[in-house]
Amino acid sequence: TFSLKIYFYFKNKEPGASPCFLRAIRPTHYSAHICEKLIKSDGFLQKNNSLEEKGRLAGQKNLLSCDNSDRDARFRRTETDFSNLFARDLLPAKNGEEPTMQFLLEVVDILTNYVKKTFDRSTKVLDFHHPHQLLEGIEGFNLELSDQPESLEQILVDCRDTLKYGVRTGHPRFFNQLSSGLDIIGLAGEWLTSTANTNMFTYEIAPVFVLMEQLTLKKMREMIGWPNGEGDGLFSPGGAISNMYSVMIARYKYFPEVKTKGMSAAPRLVLFTSEHSHYSIKKAGAALGFGTDNVILLSTDERGRVIPADLEAKILDAKQKGYVPLFVNATAGSTVYGAFDPINEIADICEKYNLWLHVDGAWGGGLLMSRKHRHKLNGIERANSVTWNPHKMMGVPLQCSAILVREKGILAGCNSMCAGYLFQPDKQYDVTYDTGDKAIQCGRHVDIFKFWLMWKAKGTTGFEQHIDKCLDLSQYLYNKIKNREGYEMVFDGVPQHTNVCFWYIPPSLRGMPDGDERREKLHRVAPKIKAMMMESGTTMVGYQPQGNKVNFFRMVVSNPSATQSDIDFLIDEIERLGHDL
Amino acid sequence: TFSLKIYFYFKNKEPGASPCFLRAIRPTHYSAHICEKLIKSDGFLQKNNSLEEKGRLAGQKNLLSCDNSDRDARFRRTETDFSNLFARDLLPAKNGEEPTMQFLLEVVDILTNYVKKTFDRSTKVLDFHHPHQLLEGIEGFNLELSDQPESLEQILVDCRDTLKYGVRTGHPRFFNQLSSGLDIIGLAGEWLTSTANTNMFTYEIAPVFVLMEQLTLKKMREMIGWPNGEGDGLFSPGGAISNMYSVMIARYKYFPEVKTKGMSAAPRLVLFTSEHSHYSIKKAGAALGFGTDNVILLSTDERGRVIPADLEAKILDAKQKGYVPLFVNATAGSTVYGAFDPINEIADICEKYNLWLHVDGAWGGGLLMSRKHRHKLNGIERANSVTWNPHKMMGVPLQCSAILVREKGILAGCNSMCAGYLFQPDKQYDVTYDTGDKAIQCGRHVDIFKFWLMWKAKGTTGFEQHIDKCLDLSQYLYNKIKNREGYEMVFDGVPQHTNVCFWYIPPSLRGMPDGDERREKLHRVAPKIKAMMMESGTTMVGYQPQGNKVNFFRMVVSNPSATQSDIDFLIDEIERLGHDL
Repeated sequence: TFSLKIYFYFKNKEPGASPCFLRAIRPTHYSAHICEKLIKSDGFLQKNNSLEEKGRLAGQKNLLSCDNSDRDARFRRTETDFSNLFARDLLPAKNGEEPTMQFLLEVVDILTNYVKKTFDRSTKVLDFHHPHQLLEGIEGFNLELSDQPESLEQILVDCRDTLKYGVRTGHPRFFNQLSSGLDIIGLAGEWLTSTANTNMFTYEIAPVFVLMEQLTLKKMREMIGWPNGEGDGLFSPGGAISNMYSVMIARYKYFPEVKTKGMSAAPRLVLFTSEHSHYSIKKAGAALGFGTDNVILLSTDERGRVIPADLEAKILDAKQKGYVPLFVNATAGSTVYGAFDPINEIADICEKYNLWLHVDGAWGGGLLMSRKHRHKLNGIERANSVTWNPHKMMGVPLQCSAILVREKGILAGCNSMCAGYLFQPDKQYDVTYDTGDKAIQCGRHVDIFKFWLMWKAKGTTGFEQHIDKCLDLSQYLYNKIKNREGYEMVFDGVPQHTNVCFWYIPPSLRGMPDGDERREKLHRVAPKIKAMMMESGTTMVGYQPQGNKVNFFRMVVSNPSATQSDIDFLIDEIERLGHDL
Repeated sequence: TFSLKIYFYFKNKEPGASPCFLRAIRPTHYSAHICEKLIKSDGFLQKNNSLEEKGRLAGQKNLLSCDNSDRDARFRRTETDFSNLFARDLLPAKNGEEPTMQFLLEVVDILTNYVKKTFDRSTKVLDFHHPHQLLEGIEGFNLELSDQPESLEQILVDCRDTLKYGVRTGHPRFFNQLSSGLDIIGLAGEWLTSTANTNMFTYEIAPVFVLMEQLTLKKMREMIGWPNGEGDGLFSPGGAISNMYSVMIARYKYFPEVKTKGMSAAPRLVLFTSEHSHYSIKKAGAALGFGTDNVILLSTDERGRVIPADLEAKILDAKQKGYVPLFVNATAGSTVYGAFDPINEIADICEKYNLWLHVDGAWGGGLLMSRKHRHKLNGIERANSVTWNPHKMMGVPLQCSAILVREKGILAGCNSMCAGYLFQPDKQYDVTYDTGDKAIQCGRHVDIFKFWLMWKAKGTTGFEQHIDKCLDLSQYLYNKIKNREGYEMVFDGVPQHTNVCFWYIPPSLRGMPDGDERREKLHRVAPKIKAMMMESGTTMVGYQPQGNKVNFFRMVVSNPSATQSDIDFLIDEIERLGHDL
């Protein structure tokens, strides 16, 4: 048999307007009824829906319809009838190949439309609803699970709704988190990773990924400055777990007997970290049996950087009390201020007192890729371990966090339990490539591929350009608001990282003398503006109090799609929403 | 402007043969030169390659070409020229939309071809190479990272190569791991998750996912049998971390002061778990500061089930020594034997001595979905906490593991650090929906969506059918080999789970009397057969020693694509490869 398929494609007159995703289907699935509805709804599935459903899908038009739908373009798409297809009809079902391909392509259509819209400034960052609204089944979006299967048509609607009510973390005006952006290469990498669906614990079932991890970690260690990139490491499920690893291996280095005998075999051990450091160091202290009381917080200067003299004083104080200092965390890029602790001065003290030096570069580690900014991490090569999250400053999709260790073998020493069913010594290949026994996890998700692929695609220079651009943008913001009426900076001077921390002072508070009343009022300003931002869906930025400082905005830039105009937009939006507070 | 695009599609005569993934491209990208090469290579990108490259791509033909390539079908595909495109040309670049769409569609083409081949028994499970071979850059596949970007064409080749040299964990003859199979709905869910690229820590940036997690966990607790599905829980990065959570919260329940004061505030605490249990309990003991010496291993019966009297004896022994029993892990589906510990009898003892009862149902938890098999977990409703990995028996893509807790609030009590920058109490929504402070992680990957979507698509009944089918298949295997010449079962009787453990005895060992020589020889049989299996790439199954038992095969079935013919194939293959050993 021979079949000829013809696609009609009415292209928009505007330059740059691009086609929808068209695809092959069996002519037998074509239906005039469906086609009519599709045309009415600018290309989206509207068959077999109740009136209520129709209204709901119409509501999605702006989000999901083709790029040019509101102008003069029309795409006629024919559809597989998914209303009579179920998961059981897909592969490995007999004759499941075609429905499988059609279903996956339909999903890809939804996803690629979402990707396009993500970068479109005319779309909202989010369409906010309260938990109770979503739980009540807003516009027919039913989150409840049932005993009976739902049709693939419903599954596709669920996919659209899930995206519709979510938050576009890749939107150029999403500044809410240290992780933002939607890197296309990284995205492709994640799609491939899910398709490969394997596990990092052995070379046996993840040969390529295990080697990619090994080579990438070596490259990262080279950038840290450890000789020949020697050492060890793993990708872990996030910076908190990476930091936890650092504490575990420090303990193993100095008190290996704790592995078998427990903390009672060691003296009272204390850990040191900045009062501005990430809370995961305290979490690790609690989880690993040190106790949060034994996590000593170090004072910082006005910019949020550890004061080395305070570290030394607190070490001496602890020793005097009979405690044993074990571990110091230096933060390279603190969460709120973006501060870089002075690593060299801290390293001097660690050497003097024989302490483990960890550098938490979860947020700031990416600056090692920039010749212009890497000096902020000077001394990192003296660290015993480093946390570095490519999923933050480097724009790799979540999750992608590395724990890097200078001493080879210590991760395995600390964590190995030699499970016979996974790590057989009598395999035919070199089993030193099996990584599982170094981890506290058993199964371990493949986090490396997207990062490896991005590195291939951008080169080190591509990451460098991205980082330099983000820092430039944050300096643009800083310059714009530092002397602007209605703004107060939380700390003086050019930020070290992309964090710009500031108060917006509404006109009603500008003349008010400093004091409790003003503080209380100012404390409520950022949450109010943030709430209005989320309700209007135009942009998102974080806020928090810190120490004795009332709620302030923390602006961060890690999103490659952000431009100066987005920074301008943020400021305009804060002023628009906050003006009458 | 108006353009008409025509695709010629020569369909194979065979029924069920299905089309390649065709897509729209700009006619300007069409090139006769490319087309010719594509035809020669059955549809795969061969332009701009050196002779060496050409040979390499030709080698991929079997893996990557269209379904019917070796028969009489031909697909003419035109291509965007990716050799002059780079990551920097993709979104958010100006005019980046079209290259972005083309690139993503090309990736999807690679992935959907891989998916099709995964279910095709005529393809190999793997194409084995040693680490040094892959590191040397086999057939031009270069794993090294460089400073300069590579073209998108090279990136696409890298994607193909990554899949080519990997392991098809969804192949019907992949039996190597407790996690196997490639669920299409789950895959779609993961693709969407990566596209949404968000983080579970706050409702603010993951509203839909947070609610899906909440509802799904409640449903799982209902299946466990906790009244009204009340309680708490989280998805965590794997069963080992879920088990670690259980130990942490047990400690917090009885000795909350450990959170602040460390393990020195508690007496010597001991944990109990079966000698057949997963090594993660010991890993947790080491990491959390108990010490592995304080993880007491319980004896099991011949089938690998904990002997309750041994638990009670060891509790009394520990108390007599002045230690404090804290926690008992009962395994529901052990890793090697698939054994279910008698939960009710263990629960009686835990109640008597006031101990925390955890059920590690990472592997066996899925049986709760089956009316026929859930009795094997009788008593689980008496547990204080449960680990249950949908990524194992239920075929959800990796990673998907839940820790479920009967007492509400204890996860937060144990782990919260109240970080002001994430968990602001003055947000506009009900902040009890923020989950981050319950976790030991900060950022947390979205593991829920694929599972939620699969549950929607299959219904509880769909999971039930899958599980019943897998257990039937393993019983088929058991019946087939239990009296077959050349096989010895590792334990007697019908397996409780899908684990079938057996030795294959090559003819040369069949007459040999039991003794050290036979044991030593038999110990080497499974590794040799496994190595040959991997070299030939036909199937994969695990082996290991256990206690004083020499290496044996552990067959497990969790792959929905496996059939009786695949079981037959495995047995034939073992005999083919092992006959002359």
